[in-house]
Amino acid sequence: MTTTAQASDTYFPARPSTDEAVRDLDHAHVFHSWSAQDEINPLPVASGSGASFTDYEGRELLDFGSQLVYVNLGHSHPRLVQAIKDQADVLPTIAPGFANDARAQLAAMIAQVAPGNLNHVFFTNGGADANENAVRMARAFTGRPKVMSAYRSYHGATSTAISLTGDPRRWSNEPGDGSVVHFFGPYLYRSMWQAETAEEETAAALRSLEQQMILEGAGTIAAIILESVVGTNGILVPPPGFLAGVRELCTKYGILYIADEVMAGFGRTGQWFAVNNWDIEPDLITFAKGVNSGYVPLGGVVISDEIREFYAHRSFGGGLTYSGHPLACAVAVESMKTFVDEGILERTRDLGERVVKPRLEAMKEKHAVVGDVRGLGLFWAIELVKDGETREPLVPFNAAGADNAPMAEFTKLCQAGGVWPWTHFNGVHVGPPLVISEEDLVRGLEVIDRALGELDRYAQ
Amino acid sequence: MTTTAQASDTYFPARPSTDEAVRDLDHAHVFHSWSAQDEINPLPVASGSGASFTDYEGRELLDFGSQLVYVNLGHSHPRLVQAIKDQADVLPTIAPGFANDARAQLAAMIAQVAPGNLNHVFFTNGGADANENAVRMARAFTGRPKVMSAYRSYHGATSTAISLTGDPRRWSNEPGDGSVVHFFGPYLYRSMWQAETAEEETAAALRSLEQQMILEGAGTIAAIILESVVGTNGILVPPPGFLAGVRELCTKYGILYIADEVMAGFGRTGQWFAVNNWDIEPDLITFAKGVNSGYVPLGGVVISDEIREFYAHRSFGGGLTYSGHPLACAVAVESMKTFVDEGILERTRDLGERVVKPRLEAMKEKHAVVGDVRGLGLFWAIELVKDGETREPLVPFNAAGADNAPMAEFTKLCQAGGVWPWTHFNGVHVGPPLVISEEDLVRGLEVIDRALGELDRYAQ
Ligand SMILES: Cc1ncc(COP(=O)(O)O)c(C=O)c1O
Ligand SMILES: Cc1ncc(COP(=O)(O)O)c(C=O)c1O
Repeated sequence: MTTTAQASDTYFPARPSTDEAVRDLDHAHVFHSWSAQDEINPLPVASGSGASFTDYEGRELLDFGSQLVYVNLGHSHPRLVQAIKDQADVLPTIAPGFANDARAQLAAMIAQVAPGNLNHVFFTNGGADANENAVRMARAFTGRPKVMSAYRSYHGATSTAISLTGDPRRWSNEPGDGSVVHFFGPYLYRSMWQAETAEEETAAALRSLEQQMILEGAGTIAAIILESVVGTNGILVPPPGFLAGVRELCTKYGILYIADEVMAGFGRTGQWFAVNNWDIEPDLITFAKGVNSGYVPLGGVVISDEIREFYAHRSFGGGLTYSGHPLACAVAVESMKTFVDEGILERTRDLGERVVKPRLEAMKEKHAVVGDVRGLGLFWAIELVKDGETREPLVPFNAAGADNAPMAEFTKLCQAGGVWPWTHFNGVHVGPPLVISEEDLVRGLEVIDRALGELDRYAQ
Repeated sequence: MTTTAQASDTYFPARPSTDEAVRDLDHAHVFHSWSAQDEINPLPVASGSGASFTDYEGRELLDFGSQLVYVNLGHSHPRLVQAIKDQADVLPTIAPGFANDARAQLAAMIAQVAPGNLNHVFFTNGGADANENAVRMARAFTGRPKVMSAYRSYHGATSTAISLTGDPRRWSNEPGDGSVVHFFGPYLYRSMWQAETAEEETAAALRSLEQQMILEGAGTIAAIILESVVGTNGILVPPPGFLAGVRELCTKYGILYIADEVMAGFGRTGQWFAVNNWDIEPDLITFAKGVNSGYVPLGGVVISDEIREFYAHRSFGGGLTYSGHPLACAVAVESMKTFVDEGILERTRDLGERVVKPRLEAMKEKHAVVGDVRGLGLFWAIELVKDGETREPLVPFNAAGADNAPMAEFTKLCQAGGVWPWTHFNGVHVGPPLVISEEDLVRGLEVIDRALGELDRYAQ
């Protein structure tokens, strides 16, 4: 950076450097996602390190949601920061039409850890465009229009991605892609089919899905897209046999299976891809977030050999300026190497089983307000209820304002305890960076435990 | 970077470092945009500097298209590289829900250079999602469904963006967003209305547009989206009065005017935004590419006060994980400062008027194959024809294979001359980095001039 005064220093506003100045400039000029602009008060964040981030006055918060579940290697990981600098020195960017070492190496590495014959990668900027392109491939490959996706899902916010989405964020974006059909996935705690065991839930969900495929006309369905573990909408871990059953149905009806691993992939569940937990081979896997902890925007689609061959002599009808961005790819390469060198997958499984699971189960025993706990790896949900018998949610579906007061109270209590919690509807989710120290993990869980104690008065 | 051997060094494939190794790994694992995968042979690129990039054997090419018209400050600009490193040291990323200094500063800077009361910025990853979100805002604000966009346009490849697009890339993505209507924009060289002067073309294009608005039902149209200068589809500079006329029609019918400045913005035409050339105030401006030369993926929507106020107490129904990415924003801040400090806008106007324009006009005089030349700033087209009288294009619309042979020959000749040309259909476009030296600019134009000499045999 030049140190002498430049014309631009007086021409443009300077960078703000206090909480208040950042807040003011942000409010004056930044338009925020999913928000009523005058009803939010974004917390200023100056820096981060490991599992914590810090405001401009030096107040530190433990990041229990890894931002939007993407800084899987935490804030300012030294190897990732160095990889950014090294690649910036060599070649920050080159267009998708060229071949480049960082891009090719990353694609090879992803192919190596992906299941089955998913050997090619189409890179995008994030998760929404990954899903858009996976659906594009599935429609072209099958020649069929429709896509099935689950209620209680999030797949991104571009037109087709938001239509795939099975949560309220879709509502203000309708009508959208008219060829999307929603189905009910398994959710044992609130079974649509009054199932009492995981086996019953799996069987009922698969029966229901197959019936819906038949009634929609299986021959009109290009693909089914499914979060391998549902993320934001409740950390819904599929019961044993469900994903295998989906794979079978897809094969039976010539439907492609797209696994959305944007949130669940790259270590969150203690595996490279969450489908690895059940040895499933989808036809397409979409990813983003954890692939490089979002230090540089990156997403993509991992593609089976059959689908790649379909495009051997037929032009693929999609693209974007920053596909395979070298800077983004170089950070992802270093991130995947760090996973191996630091044993990230193993430690994630270990911390999940040994530290999180028993503590969450103890909270369920202890707190009337806790109805269910579930998860794997460092990806857990605590579902809050008013009544353990009826399982009535602590707050109504998609609650806002006064209706949502108990959850807002919970958030405040956690923040006062130094933890930035991840909540959604009536759920408290646990998704810290995979590099969190055991000590910090326990500390954060204790803050949550104490806050739940305050919420017990809402429950019986 | 660590220098001792790590487990990951043997676990994963190493980074390739020769042309051949990069080509092979790329072919084995990277899936490329807009291509038949076995019919391309992507050129390996190892590094870049200023207006040139270099393969792994050290062969240098002058970049006459700024990659996909986005490295406006050229390759490896030292100030941008340093800005990446500085921000990486402080905070590579933070989620959109927080406030951050780099993000807020950039939004303030963009608001400063944007026309009218466009004072807020919603950040995206690139151009397609910028357009998706602009359309989302327009539909919500007006309560109307339809969007009008031009034939001969490109607006990106997510579902709504590709539906907006008025070129062949849309064809394999249909049916798409059913509420898009295409219209004919002005194009004097091939006037739809047999206009002979720019004034006639403007009047006829506006008459046609207004008629189409009325017949579509003006009250059903949320927005019209328009590249301020059409980019890929021919560098079509709007004739005097056209954009002002569009602005008037929009105001008259309560339709929002979205200016797509993804390619034309940030200096390409010698202004911050291309609309500044005609003092136009759109309601929304979309940008990407040149905002930070694509060193880190970034795009966005600049929003009028009216539309921002509409969302003051009403939730905006869109978002993305990397909205307002600090690393991307920090590079954009430094890029905009560099524009000021290095007088980029002035030099772009000067080089365009003094160096490019007279040379292109001389080529038109000299070469039978040149039918038309047009442009401004460092954004020019040379349109090639078989016949100067009939204006029959040198190659058919959307030609491939043998049909496209003359254009393929042109590309080869330029590459042999050390220039990576930017061609599209029957057009040769001139869009080098805005930092190109006058010497290199002249050298590149001379290579084009000689190659056109070879093509003259196709024309009469
Ligand atoms: C499962 C899933 N898919 C897709 C997306 C969309 O990703 P992006 O925000 O990068 O577009 C998300 C984002 O949260 C996600 O969780
Ligand atoms: C005018 C215009 N709009 C939108 C886009 C799409 O941008 P992106 O490729 O970043 O999605 C482009 C890309 O070339 C463009 O030129």
